[in-house]
Amino acid sequence: IEVLLRFFFYLFTSLLFFVVASSLLQPWHQPQKKSKVSASDVQSHINDLERINEQLLEIDQDLAAEIKAVQEKYNAKKRPLFEKRDKAASNIPNFWADIFESHPSFGEILSEFDLEVLQYMTDLKVTEGDNDAFKVEMFFKENPHFENASIFVNVTETDGAYDCQGSTIKWKSLRNEGEEAKKGDKRKSVEDLEEISFLSMFKDPMESLELLLLIKEDIYTEASGIFVRMM
Amino acid sequence: IEVLLRFFFYLFTSLLFFVVASSLLQPWHQPQKKSKVSASDVQSHINDLERINEQLLEIDQDLAAEIKAVQEKYNAKKRPLFEKRDKAASNIPNFWADIFESHPSFGEILSEFDLEVLQYMTDLKVTEGDNDAFKVEMFFKENPHFENASIFVNVTETDGAYDCQGSTIKWKSLRNEGEEAKKGDKRKSVEDLEEISFLSMFKDPMESLELLLLIKEDIYTEASGIFVRMM
Repeated sequence: IEVLLRFFFYLFTSLLFFVVASSLLQPWHQPQKKSKVSASDVQSHINDLERINEQLLEIDQDLAAEIKAVQEKYNAKKRPLFEKRDKAASNIPNFWADIFESHPSFGEILSEFDLEVLQYMTDLKVTEGDNDAFKVEMFFKENPHFENASIFVNVTETDGAYDCQGSTIKWKSLRNEGEEAKKGDKRKSVEDLEEISFLSMFKDPMESLELLLLIKEDIYTEASGIFVRMM
Repeated sequence: IEVLLRFFFYLFTSLLFFVVASSLLQPWHQPQKKSKVSASDVQSHINDLERINEQLLEIDQDLAAEIKAVQEKYNAKKRPLFEKRDKAASNIPNFWADIFESHPSFGEILSEFDLEVLQYMTDLKVTEGDNDAFKVEMFFKENPHFENASIFVNVTETDGAYDCQGSTIKWKSLRNEGEEAKKGDKRKSVEDLEEISFLSMFKDPMESLELLLLIKEDIYTEASGIFVRMM
């Protein structure tokens, strides 16, 4: 019977050893196996995410197109009203001078010279072309400062890069480019324009894209509102 | 005949005088008359302008309503995709930590403490209510820093003024408000939160409205795009 007991004891201890060993080994095995599974799991979730992102991008493109269409529809509604507004504005003395002066950005940069020049401004036209292209044109009555009846900038956009072409202003009150100072001629040269006038934006329109966009977005579209609030 | 000649001479000179006098007077009279007419003229143009401005405002209101409707239509399309994305994201380790860290604004303000806390973030929910109200909720797994399974801010808007209500975080790693420091307790107090964590936005959500709007506009809507570009 002692042999039988000894046999059971061995059986029992070896079983116990097996159980303890396997339970000890498990925590080392399991995470390795688990992290293997989750690595490919993570990759499949990343793939899902990429697919979802493409679907979201498509939706965003449709959204942008639809919003653009809505804006164009309303721009078409506003255009005849802007034309009526501009006709009324051209009969209100200093209308555009007041609008520019009251704009927070322009109000800060306009010089005495600008305010004097803007007294002669009669009209503003902003026309939009394809691909975010636009033209800003300011009209002036006969004035002692320049010959032009209107000065304009054409802005075009190709692949996110803007290009600008401005009119050449034919100055009376400034020495034009290349014009030599005669004796007693105290006029400033057009090279000093940057210091004295925001109209330098027509000389270096690329430098002044921000101002041109402000004229397009704030001044032109908001002029009647600005005027009414000023009264 | 001399009398006749003298008579014609007087006639002629008085006529000449009359012509010269009237032509001299005209420039003095004319502008006065003209400026009288133009004063009431200007007023009628100003009235026109006010009417046109009201019409433009109405069009702008319709435009805003239509754009909002378009955006809501597309938000509804995006919502199920966001939910799929969030399910995938919750299975990608550090997804939200990486997104927050790579955002230009959050990347700058996140502290070491924040990056450690964000490791436990599993999900982000942004839900929009009426009148620009929204709720931002961040979900966390069991972590050594706080008890909450989620922390959230409710933002409501009335007449352009925002109001925020944030969850109270029950800290483990910080001394909570009113909790006294026991001997040997080296935890920072929740009052120091502002210095160490962007999670202070849940304590003073009004101060952090800008961050909350960034989470709503940039992080939540752009997460999959940010993640894909990071890879």
